Amino acid sequence: MTQNRQIHLDNRPQGEAVAGNFKLVSAETPALQDGEVLVRHHFLSLDPYMRGRMNDAKSYAQPQPLGQVMQGGTAGEVVESRSPKYQPGDKVVGFGGWQEYSVVNADQPGALKKVDTTHVPLSHYLGAVGMPGVTAWYGLVKIIEPKAGQTLAVSAASGAVGSAFGALARARGCRVVGIAGGADKCNYVTKELGFDACVDYKQHKDAASLSKALKEAAPDGIDGYFENVGGMVMDAVMLRMNAFSSIALCGMIAGYDGQPVPMTYPQLILTNRMKVQGFIVSEHMEVWPDALKELGTLVGSGKLRPRESIAQGIESAPEAFLGLLKGRNFGKQLVKLV
Amino acid sequence: MTQNRQIHLDNRPQGEAVAGNFKLVSAETPALQDGEVLVRHHFLSLDPYMRGRMNDAKSYAQPQPLGQVMQGGTAGEVVESRSPKYQPGDKVVGFGGWQEYSVVNADQPGALKKVDTTHVPLSHYLGAVGMPGVTAWYGLVKIIEPKAGQTLAVSAASGAVGSAFGALARARGCRVVGIAGGADKCNYVTKELGFDACVDYKQHKDAASLSKALKEAAPDGIDGYFENVGGMVMDAVMLRMNAFSSIALCGMIAGYDGQPVPMTYPQLILTNRMKVQGFIVSEHMEVWPDALKELGTLVGSGKLRPRESIAQGIESAPEAFLGLLKGRNFGKQLVKLV
Repeated sequence: MTQNRQIHLDNRPQGEAVAGNFKLVSAETPALQDGEVLVRHHFLSLDPYMRGRMNDAKSYAQPQPLGQVMQGGTAGEVVESRSPKYQPGDKVVGFGGWQEYSVVNADQPGALKKVDTTHVPLSHYLGAVGMPGVTAWYGLVKIIEPKAGQTLAVSAASGAVGSAFGALARARGCRVVGIAGGADKCNYVTKELGFDACVDYKQHKDAASLSKALKEAAPDGIDGYFENVGGMVMDAVMLRMNAFSSIALCGMIAGYDGQPVPMTYPQLILTNRMKVQGFIVSEHMEVWPDALKELGTLVGSGKLRPRESIAQGIESAPEAFLGLLKGRNFGKQLVKLV
Repeated sequence: MTQNRQIHLDNRPQGEAVAGNFKLVSAETPALQDGEVLVRHHFLSLDPYMRGRMNDAKSYAQPQPLGQVMQGGTAGEVVESRSPKYQPGDKVVGFGGWQEYSVVNADQPGALKKVDTTHVPLSHYLGAVGMPGVTAWYGLVKIIEPKAGQTLAVSAASGAVGSAFGALARARGCRVVGIAGGADKCNYVTKELGFDACVDYKQHKDAASLSKALKEAAPDGIDGYFENVGGMVMDAVMLRMNAFSSIALCGMIAGYDGQPVPMTYPQLILTNRMKVQGFIVSEHMEVWPDALKELGTLVGSGKLRPRESIAQGIESAPEAFLGLLKGRNFGKQLVKLV
């Protein structure tokens, strides 16, 4: 039995999520049963979708239960095994939640996956070569279906999904315009990630102003857009979208706290004959192998150099998560536990 | 030369369209050149899309020019021909505009089409067996892609597009729920058109109330929706749509007068993994033959009995059109000239 610190959801947000919604709890790991392994988490993944699950609302996933460990992706190392499938020392990714250790039934399909850290650092399996990367891949390849020479755009461009989207789009011969908050992020998006342009939405106080800046960054209009944010940013991009363009709708951070954020110009979907499609990457497991292979190659070859914001220690998870929702992270937000 | 009364667009609407935007003008038809025919219009088609073209705004079509005949579909009879392709007496549909006669170059592809009025009355070629019918067909077959047993919904259900949508959906084994304004229209939708249910949106003053009524009419939720209206009606339907559902976006009458009407709950597109797609049927000419064949059979066999609102005389066109925008028509709105 090992001391295992955990973060529970203690109560649901009233509007904006706050630190008081979470609670640090100490427990002991249970003794392993046959077929189980004990995983020590090296990294926790913090992702915007978690905010949606904190509400007690109908959504694609069950709400995060109260009084239980916050759910989420993890990368770590097997430290004890009663399964022939895993040996201590195996590097694995799973869905262990906001805690230092998890006990996993190794026979449950998809619960754990061994990963090779020779060319790809362990943490990237929670980002560019994990769920966020596959999310970008699905939206780009299956919804936007880009053609070489088209102009694509992505919000939260410096983040885990946005940076992968940029690399995948560039590899397909597209012009890519990022939208990010602040000069530092925009510099990173163009200089390090190789986007063709980046617009700092914080310099614009309404959709009309942001849309004008997008017109300069995308003089031929926008053919495909990957939406991570919603609200004003989405309105501004919609004003610049071309006929027969597509929006892959993956996140709407703007609407997670309380009141829904309307779409101001839905008639553009009609006048521009657009397709707007929402998706959840976990429902498309069939694409993961192809997507992960391409993403692993991009990272391994240095064409995608994802940035990470790393908080230290389990106790830092709530504040790091709240910062993520406000865009304070820079790249993939992780918590390092070891 | 024949006396030819016409309705011109005299000035553009400031907000709501009004009768003063139009002007009745008398002209004479020009002498025919080789290859031309003179068509006497029996019916003008009035359609909601015309309101969009009255604005001087970027849209899928060029704005209706000022000081010229209002554009629109027409059905009539060839009365004089200098083309070997047409004889006087031929019944034809075309795009002759709001006037009593038009001179048409018979060699221009798609400008005129002969129709057979043995089983289908001439006027229906402007409705169920014309552009509105094909519009319903395209949204249903190509965007919603229904499966037998699913529940579908359509707004403006008693209108030309809505009534065709219902018959096409029923023929595919779907449950169909209409939305219409007033008890008379709802009665017609269920009793005459054979919809499974109809909700009177005029009985509801907000989306929450209308959504509740839709829940009774569609207890298993809505899998596909054909949108002719936008605004509050669309919000209410979106609240009842199932996971992996689709919306074919064809009209947004609610937003034609002035200010755009927002979509209140765009995050539902994400949480329900929906597809929302706009389209213009004139860009999909490849489907017209199949669609018209099915629609002609439905009308000829009595399975689709479209209703018409018929205004008399060219001078009545503006008021009939303004009534259409307010939902005062009942079925396909036409102007009869002969």
